[in-house]
Amino acid sequence: MKVKSDLQNGKSLIKVDSQEISPNFMASTLMKPNINWLIIFLPISFAIAYIPYFKNEIYLFFTSCLGLIIVAYWLGNATEQLAARVGSTWGGMMNAAFSNLPELIFGLIAVSKGLESLAKATWTGAIISNMLVVVGAAIMAGGYRYGIVKFPLERAKDAAAGLMLATFAVLLPSVYAHFVAFGSDVEARQVLEGVSIWTCLFLLMAYGGSIVYALAQFRVEITTPEWHHLDTPMPEKVQPDWSLSQSMGVLAISSLLIAFLSDFISDSIDSITASLGWTQMFVGIIVIGVIGNVGALFSAVSVALKNKMDLSFEIGLNAASQVALLVVPVLVLSSVVMGKPVSLLFTPAEIAALLSSVLIMAQISQDGRCNWLNGLQMLILYGIIGVLFFYDHLST
Amino acid sequence: MKVKSDLQNGKSLIKVDSQEISPNFMASTLMKPNINWLIIFLPISFAIAYIPYFKNEIYLFFTSCLGLIIVAYWLGNATEQLAARVGSTWGGMMNAAFSNLPELIFGLIAVSKGLESLAKATWTGAIISNMLVVVGAAIMAGGYRYGIVKFPLERAKDAAAGLMLATFAVLLPSVYAHFVAFGSDVEARQVLEGVSIWTCLFLLMAYGGSIVYALAQFRVEITTPEWHHLDTPMPEKVQPDWSLSQSMGVLAISSLLIAFLSDFISDSIDSITASLGWTQMFVGIIVIGVIGNVGALFSAVSVALKNKMDLSFEIGLNAASQVALLVVPVLVLSSVVMGKPVSLLFTPAEIAALLSSVLIMAQISQDGRCNWLNGLQMLILYGIIGVLFFYDHLST
Amino acid sequence: MKVKSDLQNGKSLIKVDSQEISPNFMASTLMKPNINWLIIFLPISFAIAYIPYFKNEIYLFFTSCLGLIIVAYWLGNATEQLAARVGSTWGGMMNAAFSNLPELIFGLIAVSKGLESLAKATWTGAIISNMLVVVGAAIMAGGYRYGIVKFPLERAKDAAAGLMLATFAVLLPSVYAHFVAFGSDVEARQVLEGVSIWTCLFLLMAYGGSIVYALAQFRVEITTPEWHHLDTPMPEKVQPDWSLSQSMGVLAISSLLIAFLSDFISDSIDSITASLGWTQMFVGIIVIGVIGNVGALFSAVSVALKNKMDLSFEIGLNAASQVALLVVPVLVLSSVVMGKPVSLLFTPAEIAALLSSVLIMAQISQDGRCNWLNGLQMLILYGIIGVLFFYDHLST
Repeated sequence: MKVKSDLQNGKSLIKVDSQEISPNFMASTLMKPNINWLIIFLPISFAIAYIPYFKNEIYLFFTSCLGLIIVAYWLGNATEQLAARVGSTWGGMMNAAFSNLPELIFGLIAVSKGLESLAKATWTGAIISNMLVVVGAAIMAGGYRYGIVKFPLERAKDAAAGLMLATFAVLLPSVYAHFVAFGSDVEARQVLEGVSIWTCLFLLMAYGGSIVYALAQFRVEITTPEWHHLDTPMPEKVQPDWSLSQSMGVLAISSLLIAFLSDFISDSIDSITASLGWTQMFVGIIVIGVIGNVGALFSAVSVALKNKMDLSFEIGLNAASQVALLVVPVLVLSSVVMGKPVSLLFTPAEIAALLSSVLIMAQISQDGRCNWLNGLQMLILYGIIGVLFFYDHLST
Repeated sequence: MKVKSDLQNGKSLIKVDSQEISPNFMASTLMKPNINWLIIFLPISFAIAYIPYFKNEIYLFFTSCLGLIIVAYWLGNATEQLAARVGSTWGGMMNAAFSNLPELIFGLIAVSKGLESLAKATWTGAIISNMLVVVGAAIMAGGYRYGIVKFPLERAKDAAAGLMLATFAVLLPSVYAHFVAFGSDVEARQVLEGVSIWTCLFLLMAYGGSIVYALAQFRVEITTPEWHHLDTPMPEKVQPDWSLSQSMGVLAISSLLIAFLSDFISDSIDSITASLGWTQMFVGIIVIGVIGNVGALFSAVSVALKNKMDLSFEIGLNAASQVALLVVPVLVLSSVVMGKPVSLLFTPAEIAALLSSVLIMAQISQDGRCNWLNGLQMLILYGIIGVLFFYDHLST
Repeated sequence: MKVKSDLQNGKSLIKVDSQEISPNFMASTLMKPNINWLIIFLPISFAIAYIPYFKNEIYLFFTSCLGLIIVAYWLGNATEQLAARVGSTWGGMMNAAFSNLPELIFGLIAVSKGLESLAKATWTGAIISNMLVVVGAAIMAGGYRYGIVKFPLERAKDAAAGLMLATFAVLLPSVYAHFVAFGSDVEARQVLEGVSIWTCLFLLMAYGGSIVYALAQFRVEITTPEWHHLDTPMPEKVQPDWSLSQSMGVLAISSLLIAFLSDFISDSIDSITASLGWTQMFVGIIVIGVIGNVGALFSAVSVALKNKMDLSFEIGLNAASQVALLVVPVLVLSSVVMGKPVSLLFTPAEIAALLSSVLIMAQISQDGRCNWLNGLQMLILYGIIGVLFFYDHLST
């Protein structure tokens, strides 16, 4: 039904619909006029970082953050192009795998520098802001324009269950560790490393399951003549505009730039906390955690304003799930391989924030319908979490 | 459909329906024969308080509690009358604003006397008892008579999300404060005051949002010829029976009486805990927290027995939301202005009780249908909470 | 509709349906070819326990566990036969009451030996594994074969609410006890005993309510010519195959054997923790907690593969509810009578595990439909919980 009406609306609408499995591409399409000017922050950042005359870590922090937004956007484009080239099924998987490269690269650099609590704060921030800000703002925008916005319940439910799982996976060892008295640091490290490694493997299994399920659904949808109950439109193959080498080149350059910018940011974080009085938690959870989501926020709101709330949910919850079920376990396991093991222990305030976010998201998405008040409630919870971490200068 | 059948049922049913936005008025209508005799406790309380011969703080506590019930009921009537005079939209807002005057006045007096933990206990009690006792008893009564009772899912969902938000707003700073070691008391006070003030402003924003949403819905309903999906009947203007000055007079006198009775209660609380062995937590959460809800309990059960479960939910959840999103932030902000700052920190047991209540309420209201077993489950949770606080003589 | 098609499918299907109120019987029918060979572990266990030459506590532990599976299955058969004899209504109650005899007997023996934390670990394990493993595996199996499996929302919702209630009932006093500093051990014991006793009485009330509700529903269903909205088939009386004395005899012998095997298991637990390095928590929650559910697991998966997901839910959630709302309170109250009072305090990790399990189960069962991914998510949460307790050698 939806598909038919879309077909009647002509090519442009179909094109948007056809991206349903690759939100980033659409995000880039929709955002092109808006953020390309951010490119000027790349040379500025490098100048501040490497020309002694301009050396200023506070400026460096902010220009690097702004530069990261545009590079993350290029990376998204390149991923899309590669995904289009290899076909829908594998492309969807590639897209899912690469779309969190910025978080992965930043996390790797932070972990390798021993900034364990900063790394975790950015993961917490990425999960929370995708759930509350990306989805919340989209609900608010869509709900304000259309009254009640609808979305397919099953996907929201599955994603919420996956995010709950990830939240419990960090809640369980943290609750345990906070309430028992380990005999020695060695003992504590041994237990927490064992728990963290195995829990991460289970989270990766949950991620793998969700990918397999999504691909199976997808295959059912394109091979079945009757449309699936989820009311998803038939996905079309995206026509790649870039050559293979071009895509690979942009991917490589973007990744490299992200590595540099992440390096600048993590080096300048001490100046930020010292001069501005911002806590490291606030910088990690609210400032850095949000950067990778600026693109997602714009595209989620854009599609919500087109009354495609299902897609907004997909964008926000997919991104949150990927950080929780893919980026975090991969980084924790990498940290063990790197010999600088990061445990799955988060601070009590982080866990409370994760749990609050996932519970309110589950509550609001439970019936497949939302109004703008629900979006406002999600944004207000984010505000309250932001206030807490703004004052949290004791957690590390 | 519902509206039509109501219209056919004649005037009396319409009259009940027309109060949907002003449950207190209906409450008073339904309860008139029952509680007016409680008026005798007013002179008794004053006699006990001011005539040295009768001085007995234990009696004073109970007579003041009983007196508070009847005065809260007058206040509700006066508010209704004023609301009827100014028209439905603003009247609804006024009604919402004034209906929690008893909690506000009691809280102000407790805060000004430095009874911070008593004040918080009464807020916890008001929120919990509205959710579990008012709604639970109504579900049990309605479910017992009608099997499955139904209510509009959207309003229950929005109210539950608002209550979740408020619960998380006290959970987050409390979890933080319980797990970090502040360097000094000054530091702790500074952080918690900052967090409390900003969090309260966010809660007020959530309250404002819910009021704006309710008014917008309301306007849609009365201007749209087609009936809203929520199946709410057309609200009619209530005819005011009292003159403006009469209403204002009753409002003023009731408020004054509430202030006196609150004063009596908070002065006699030490005798109660000393002689009866009741903990301050039990008195605050279970005894005082329930008093303001006796009227709401009666009316919620009454309308549930008329198979109007939607209205019962409205009564209980509105009252709980108003305490959580309006009374608590206003009092915390007032306490800062008064120079006796009260933080948003609640005891771990209070937070566990709030979280348990809101989660079970969300679980039970999730599909818009309830049976009496669900009501019993809510009442049993309240009983379990009551047992805990009955034995809780260590939290302050 | 469902009933009619079942009738057309002939007798065998009707027979399965007719057991809806007595899942254990069906479980036994379905499993007969599979587990009867486990009987050999009974003589082996007794030989190891009583013949000094064979004495080996590690072997004893495992043979007793395997023996327990087959004896629990006989007990289920005997209960079914007795239930069939006394008629559906009372039979359903008897079945409910006796089906948790293994957990009750094991718990009594553990409590009487002062193994309080082991007893609680097995209760936690029984609740969690019924929710996550029995239901999760059934959802995964059914969902894999049929895509989307459906189940009646109301029963899942009521059971989830009951399990939430039980979880909060242990959460509340534990949160309280972990955060206050009792003046003395006497004071702590007094408070916790009072809280535990009253809370257990409330839990039994919740259990009683759910039984009364189930019986009332049942009566409505068999007396009403129109079928109930829950789409449950008409229950038929089970024809008892065993004589009354045969059933009573098997019941008595099984109970006795369970007592012996429980004794063997609890005596050999120290050897297990010492030699295998398994923590007592892991043995209690994961190993012993699962034994009683092997039968339930097989039958839940079997019926899920027949697309009768409603029955799988019934099996898993009923068993979990009975442990939480019946076995635990009965044992805690018995422990007080026995003079070896066991409190309702669970370890923080156990409470986190219970809360996680009930929240993800509520999340997944919220819309009456599941896919295999949801089942996988539940199993993965169980795996994560298992990992935690595998490393938890400090909680007691």
